[in-house]
Amino acid sequence: LEADDIARVRALTLDLHEADLADLIQLLRPEERAELIAALGEDFKAAALPELDEAVRDQVLEDMPPEQVAEVLQQLDSDEAVYLLEDLDKDDQKDILAKLPYFERIALQRSLEYPEDSAGRIMQTDLIAVPPFWSVGQTIDYMRVAEDLPDRFYEIFVVDPAYHLIGSVALNRLLRSKRPTTIESITDEDLRPIMVEADQEEVARQFERYNLTSAPVIDEDKRLVGVITADDVVEVVQEEASEDILAMGGVGGESVSDTVWETTRLRFTWLFANLITAILASLVISVFEATIEEMVALAVLMPIVASMGGNAGTQTMTVAVRALATQDLGRVNAVRVIIRESAVGLLNGLLFAVIMAAIAYFWFGSDELGLVIGVAMVVNLFAAALAGILIPLGLEALDLDPAIASGVFVTTVTDVVGFFAFLGLAALWLF
Amino acid sequence: LEADDIARVRALTLDLHEADLADLIQLLRPEERAELIAALGEDFKAAALPELDEAVRDQVLEDMPPEQVAEVLQQLDSDEAVYLLEDLDKDDQKDILAKLPYFERIALQRSLEYPEDSAGRIMQTDLIAVPPFWSVGQTIDYMRVAEDLPDRFYEIFVVDPAYHLIGSVALNRLLRSKRPTTIESITDEDLRPIMVEADQEEVARQFERYNLTSAPVIDEDKRLVGVITADDVVEVVQEEASEDILAMGGVGGESVSDTVWETTRLRFTWLFANLITAILASLVISVFEATIEEMVALAVLMPIVASMGGNAGTQTMTVAVRALATQDLGRVNAVRVIIRESAVGLLNGLLFAVIMAAIAYFWFGSDELGLVIGVAMVVNLFAAALAGILIPLGLEALDLDPAIASGVFVTTVTDVVGFFAFLGLAALWLF
Repeated sequence: LEADDIARVRALTLDLHEADLADLIQLLRPEERAELIAALGEDFKAAALPELDEAVRDQVLEDMPPEQVAEVLQQLDSDEAVYLLEDLDKDDQKDILAKLPYFERIALQRSLEYPEDSAGRIMQTDLIAVPPFWSVGQTIDYMRVAEDLPDRFYEIFVVDPAYHLIGSVALNRLLRSKRPTTIESITDEDLRPIMVEADQEEVARQFERYNLTSAPVIDEDKRLVGVITADDVVEVVQEEASEDILAMGGVGGESVSDTVWETTRLRFTWLFANLITAILASLVISVFEATIEEMVALAVLMPIVASMGGNAGTQTMTVAVRALATQDLGRVNAVRVIIRESAVGLLNGLLFAVIMAAIAYFWFGSDELGLVIGVAMVVNLFAAALAGILIPLGLEALDLDPAIASGVFVTTVTDVVGFFAFLGLAALWLF
Repeated sequence: LEADDIARVRALTLDLHEADLADLIQLLRPEERAELIAALGEDFKAAALPELDEAVRDQVLEDMPPEQVAEVLQQLDSDEAVYLLEDLDKDDQKDILAKLPYFERIALQRSLEYPEDSAGRIMQTDLIAVPPFWSVGQTIDYMRVAEDLPDRFYEIFVVDPAYHLIGSVALNRLLRSKRPTTIESITDEDLRPIMVEADQEEVARQFERYNLTSAPVIDEDKRLVGVITADDVVEVVQEEASEDILAMGGVGGESVSDTVWETTRLRFTWLFANLITAILASLVISVFEATIEEMVALAVLMPIVASMGGNAGTQTMTVAVRALATQDLGRVNAVRVIIRESAVGLLNGLLFAVIMAAIAYFWFGSDELGLVIGVAMVVNLFAAALAGILIPLGLEALDLDPAIASGVFVTTVTDVVGFFAFLGLAALWLF
């Protein structure tokens, strides 16, 4: 299909939506990708590029001549153009920017200067801003003749001569007003502007909290510099959620298009951290070697205590990390949540103490062993609850991401406490 | 503050944004909530209600007389009204619906009939639909006089006389066209309508994939029944991500406002499942009691093998579960991902085999023990990789949610394989 019949390939792909075209490109082999794009020529949908996975996107962009990339960038909305450029290396960026007309170049360069993952990177800089003394009619006429407007927009902004933001007018408000009405009289000044340096996570939170569809972005001087729309925020939310999930699973920073070796390296780091904690737990066990030699049943049962503690700790930690991410957990309710989690830990500790004491008694016929494992269970599930809530809160207070590191610390605590309580009590009570 | 000075309370709260007012209500004690709402009377912002947590919301709604609730519902957009009603019990719903005017009642009843978490529940039913033969001028005049329009909207829809969806016109397109232009000529027919029965997760995926800001919702007869906007989708995405994160941490279905007892019960179930798997692992250990008695070093080292396997399995599983949720993993690339994960598992297995063999050798001075733990490590990390990818894929194929159950199965595999490989090899080679 690919090698010969260009006309047919064109016919098949011309009507695809950009997201579907992007999927197609990803399925092809690298050489075929360039061929397909060449075959489409001017009809290649620029909008397919931002839909590609990072690795594929960079490969495709590097294979395209800078002139063609520059042309593609001009077809895109400004936020998408920045998205394409930001991952390329500095030299490629320079080559491409050099081919752009002056205004586009300046605008893109400025956007690229904002920190990664900031509002400045996801905002759209094409927008409509009018002075408050214009009439509705004037504004509509201006919009009819203006070129280089964004593809879609939902509100226009009202600014003073220095481009300070005064307010906004939703398009439906504009449509429903008579032509002589002044913009000033229909301006909504109750805005929630976003600072251009704000982190995208913060932007998403604002959108969620206030159910925004679009929000203006301002710089330190309160000048209007861009606008962020809810469809960009949908992607930010999805991205941040993925980051947290992967970080909690010990696979932070991983991407599906990484090589086997890269993936091995990333996971190795996390597994190595886990090895250290596992050795720590083993050291605790080795203190009680003599005790275990006298009663091997201890070796049989000890993983149960550790595993239950690890799971209970993970439960509390998961709730805490998520609540911190969604800001449901903060200074105001931290103490209440700590007490609550401790109570849950203690209750489940008591329940499983009874269950495990009974199992140990029937399995090994020793009521003392039952007592030991029961008490160890209460101690460890209580410790798990405390570690599960205090460690994420502590990391957050130290400005570290609780999603990344909490897991290692929590299981270290539950392993060490679990083995120490179980074997220590056994050494004290059984002999 | 609360008990006496109503005027002051009013002055302080009147200007709050609804999201902030909702936060304030949540911080109050239950009795105070009703007092505050009574004090605000007609000025109470209805829009604050959907922002409340479920438990608080239901309590507030149950304390309000049905007439007042009915009034509040009429002030809200239709999707928010459904959101408030859906969690109340049937009797309360009936009481409240009975107080509503006919049309509102019918519309809300119909929305409540759609399945939970479906597009029908999150869509907005107030929308503007016009016939294709109208002119732009006619449409604008209609919008100027029409009442009961949604607060904000971004496009109008074009329908035939039977209300079948033909296309949409973005407001900016409408604004930029001259009054005599027919709607037909500016209609965008390239729509991605959403079926009213579609799951909200599917809706979010469509929005993300095609960068939608709003999308029409149609019923089985292709009739236009509502519209979904991106700000609703932001909340769906956040909600689904929370669900997955909590499910993977073994705390699915939990909410911050649950009681201690309810939380204990939910977590107990998961911990109990974990207990069964831990006992299974203990049974494996008990098979080798005699071996351990001869060499206690085995008891010291065996948790390391199990813990490394558990973590490696969790890593692979996390990547797999997330990729399934975002549809980055499917039939097309399943085999490739399985091979990839196996390779990573094998590589890390070899690396940690060398490391652990060296540690065991120096710690216990036995090169045979080093060999045993090394081989056990390779076997277990390879098994972990296979379990981590195959179990989520299997659950997905059985139409079960891989986020909920994968964890238990994966750690069962890694515990059992880990202990069996380590102790079994020790029994074979060391004595």
